[in-house]
This record gives sequence, C-alpha cells and structure tokens, in this order.
Amino acid sequence: MIVVKVGGAEGIDYEKVAEDAASLWKEGVRLILLHGGSAEMGRIAEALGHPPRFLTHPGGLQSRLTDRKTLEIFEMVYCGLVNKRLVELLQRHGANAVGLSGLDGRLLVGRRKAAVKYVEDGKVKIHRGDYTGSVEVVNTGLLHLLLEAGYLPVLTPPALSYENEAINTDGDTAAAKVALAMGAEVLIFLSNVPGLLANYPDESSLVREIPAERVDAPEYMALAQGRMKKKVLGAVEAVKGGIKRVVFADGRVRNPIRRALAGEGTVVR
Amino acid sequence: MIVVKVGGAEGIDYEKVAEDAASLWKEGVRLILLHGGSAEMGRIAEALGHPPRFLTHPGGLQSRLTDRKTLEIFEMVYCGLVNKRLVELLQRHGANAVGLSGLDGRLLVGRRKAAVKYVEDGKVKIHRGDYTGSVEVVNTGLLHLLLEAGYLPVLTPPALSYENEAINTDGDTAAAKVALAMGAEVLIFLSNVPGLLANYPDESSLVREIPAERVDAPEYMALAQGRMKKKVLGAVEAVKGGIKRVVFADGRVRNPIRRALAGEGTVVR
Repeated sequence: MIVVKVGGAEGIDYEKVAEDAASLWKEGVRLILLHGGSAEMGRIAEALGHPPRFLTHPGGLQSRLTDRKTLEIFEMVYCGLVNKRLVELLQRHGANAVGLSGLDGRLLVGRRKAAVKYVEDGKVKIHRGDYTGSVEVVNTGLLHLLLEAGYLPVLTPPALSYENEAINTDGDTAAAKVALAMGAEVLIFLSNVPGLLANYPDESSLVREIPAERVDAPEYMALAQGRMKKKVLGAVEAVKGGIKRVVFADGRVRNPIRRALAGEGTVVR
Repeated sequence: MIVVKVGGAEGIDYEKVAEDAASLWKEGVRLILLHGGSAEMGRIAEALGHPPRFLTHPGGLQSRLTDRKTLEIFEMVYCGLVNKRLVELLQRHGANAVGLSGLDGRLLVGRRKAAVKYVEDGKVKIHRGDYTGSVEVVNTGLLHLLLEAGYLPVLTPPALSYENEAINTDGDTAAAKVALAMGAEVLIFLSNVPGLLANYPDESSLVREIPAERVDAPEYMALAQGRMKKKVLGAVEAVKGGIKRVVFADGRVRNPIRRALAGEGTVVR
C-alpha cells in the first residue's frame, strides 16, 4: 500500500500524477491519494471577495484562518474543483477513482480547535470560533471496502469534528495519519520542489537521504521552509509510527510516483 | 429502497430534509439521496463573473449551457458546497452519509451531447462543445456496496461521459435512472412547491393523484411549469420502467420525506 499526498501549490502537474497513479493502479499496486488545493483556494477565495487569511502560531507554524464562509469556499475548491478534477483525470487514464472528503463516511474525524493561539505584534492572542482541527481517527473500514472492490480512493480535507462539524485540517498530517492507520509501506509527498533543499530554493541542494532516527533533529527541521514544515512534521509522525519509507518528491515531472519509489527526492527511512 | 431527489431551488430546507432522512436511515430504511444546486449555482457563478446561461431546445425544454469553466463552477457548487453541506447535516443527525458525484466510481455514465440544438430568434441553431449529456448507466455495484456496509449515499451530478469527461446532466432524470437501476419502490422529488399545481403558482390547486398510465397525457404534462417539466419527464420514465410510486412533494416543510411517503403532494402510481 502506497499513500501519496499530492500538494496544492502552483506547478504540480495533476495530469502527470494521474497518469502515473492510474498506471500503477492498473498493475495492481494499492494506492490511496490525498490532495491539497492551496493555490486554487487562493484564486477562488480572492475572486469571491473573501481572500485567505493565515494565523502564525507561537511555534512559528502557519494555519488558515477558517470561518464558516472560508470553510464553504474550502469545500468548493478542495471537494469540488480539485477532487473532481483529479478523479476525472484518473478515470481518463483508466483508474476507477472515488473521491471522498473526510466528512464522507466519517473518513477523517478529529478534534476541533475552536480556540487557536496566534502571534500578532509580538503578543500571543487567542482566536475563537475557528473551524480547524486535527485528524485523530481514520475510517479504515471504508477505505478497505473501496480498495477491495477495486476502487482508487482520492481523499481530501475537510475532516469531521467529534461534534459533526466540518473542520479544515492540514492535508500533510492527515496523509500521515491515513498511511499509519492503513499500515502503508510508503508515504510520498509530492510538491513543487524536488524534495528537502539544504539551501532553499536552490534545487541543486537536494538532501538525498535522512536517517529515520534523525528526522526530527534540528539540522533537518531547519531545512524545512514554509509549507515544507508540515510535511516534515508529517514525516516525523509517520516514521515514528512505523512507516518504513517517506519520500519528499517532485510533483512537476513525468512519473512522479514511480520516481519517488525509485528514490528520487528526499528519502526518509 | 427509497430514492429522494432534493431540488436545488430557493426555499428547500436542507436541514429538515437531512433530519428526516437521518431518522428514516436510523430506522433501517434504505435511502439514496440525489441533490441539485441551481440556486447556489446562480449565486456563485454570478460572483465569479461567469453568470449562468441557458439554451431553449426546440421542444421547449431548457438546459444549462455548460462550457468547461461552467463545468468547473458546477463541480464546486454541486460536489463541494451543496454535497458536503448535506453530508455534514446528515452526519449531525446521526446518518453516516457518503457524498459521491457521477464521476466517482463511474457512478453515473452517459453520452455527451457535444452538439445541442437550440432555438434563438425563432430559428433552430446548433451549439457545439457543450459538456452536457444524459445518464445511461448507473454503477449499482458501488451503491449496493455502500448500502450494505451501512452508508447513506448522497449523489450529485456531474456524470461521466463514455470518453471520460465530466458532463453536466439533469438531476431529475438522473434520479429516475438511479431509482430504476436500483429497483426502488418509491421515487420522491422534493421541490419548493407542494407538488404539481393545476394553476401554478397557486399552491391550493395541488393535483393529488395522477394515474400512472396517464402521467404523460397532455393534460398532466401541461401542469408541469418550468423546472417541474423535467421532474414530470423523470416520473414518466420511472413509472414506465416499473417504479410503483413517484411523489412530487414539498421540500420546505418538517419531515418532507415522511410526508411524501404518507401521500402528501402529487402521487403518481
């Protein structure tokens, strides 16, 4: 079983990802895709007059400020535009994909963080009423049901809170949770860079390998810039939980999944 | 098995529909929902600067002109906003809903009509390149798989063409196809009127019953105004195909499905 997180940043080539995923699926490889949608989210939210806003947390991580209106736009972009685009491309390449959000069949359930700490003007403040949270439970039964019947699941946030509210959740950590819950051998993060870069954004400075026991050492965490940070946290969680191999790889190239499996990118093992 | 088409017009109360559907589901009634989204589609498409356009066909029926941009907005509204809203409401009321478009698992497959005849200034013209079509094949295997595992399927257009393109398809006739393919006993159309009205829009002129063998008689077809027309065509198809009972009922009231089952609305049998 391979879990592939397809990033949502500009430059990732969904056509090539779908072609590669469908070809692996036709060879009998068990795959689960999980995707983002941040670039499209930015465009659509701007066009609808509700531009994205982010909070910076005390630890330095950023997250999307998600009021109910943002959540609805998020669902339109992630569950509608991006999920159905990927499903259509996979169907075109011969894979019988089924797109699901975390709400569907209670696939991704977690705790809503209605009160979120953030930093503004050097002070820690609290934002209340946010629709965000983190995935704690994966409905592996539904995924097994679909996989055994020959479908290729294509997952997307939002998740469902324990109180049955849709909550925005980070796709990278959700992918790690899915990989762990399903006992995947490999977890691949496809983004718009070739992997972890020693001198971001210099793509020739690719870090080839990180020993699993050292993945959360400061020297490696320091390599993770911006949105890469959550992918590295996802990798830490996955490797600690027993996933044998995590690969950060390029989602802009032909056969991105096969290349990642062949060791192109940053391999954590 | 009951198939319920939840209309997308202004006024339909999704909260009440979800509450009623979830309560029936918890009693063990096998349900499939299929929904529209026309009112939300109008709002979002306007806001995105791509307002809806409709073609009037030689027979007088209207359909949405669907270029690729419209199709993407359609997916955002139907598969994202409306589908996930319904799934979330159903989860809140205790039903384990799974939202799927016709693309997912090739659930609704049909023929794309790339060339569509329409009437303009009294002349019949041809519009090419449209992404519309009609459902011919329903993947009943996937629906049975989900129903038997205890999930409540919540379906929405678009469908998938034989060439694996997403196509806009009429939800009312799609609901009739699903009901027929699944051998449903009852097909219910919930809209923002109490049923077929003899003097539209006078709600006191509700037609209580139509004998099945007469449903496509001119006197009844004449009752069908505007968007009701396709629902009546859906009913004709369903009744001719062997569905015992079709009910046109009010989607604005408490317990709309139970009321329809109890005979409130226009019953075709």
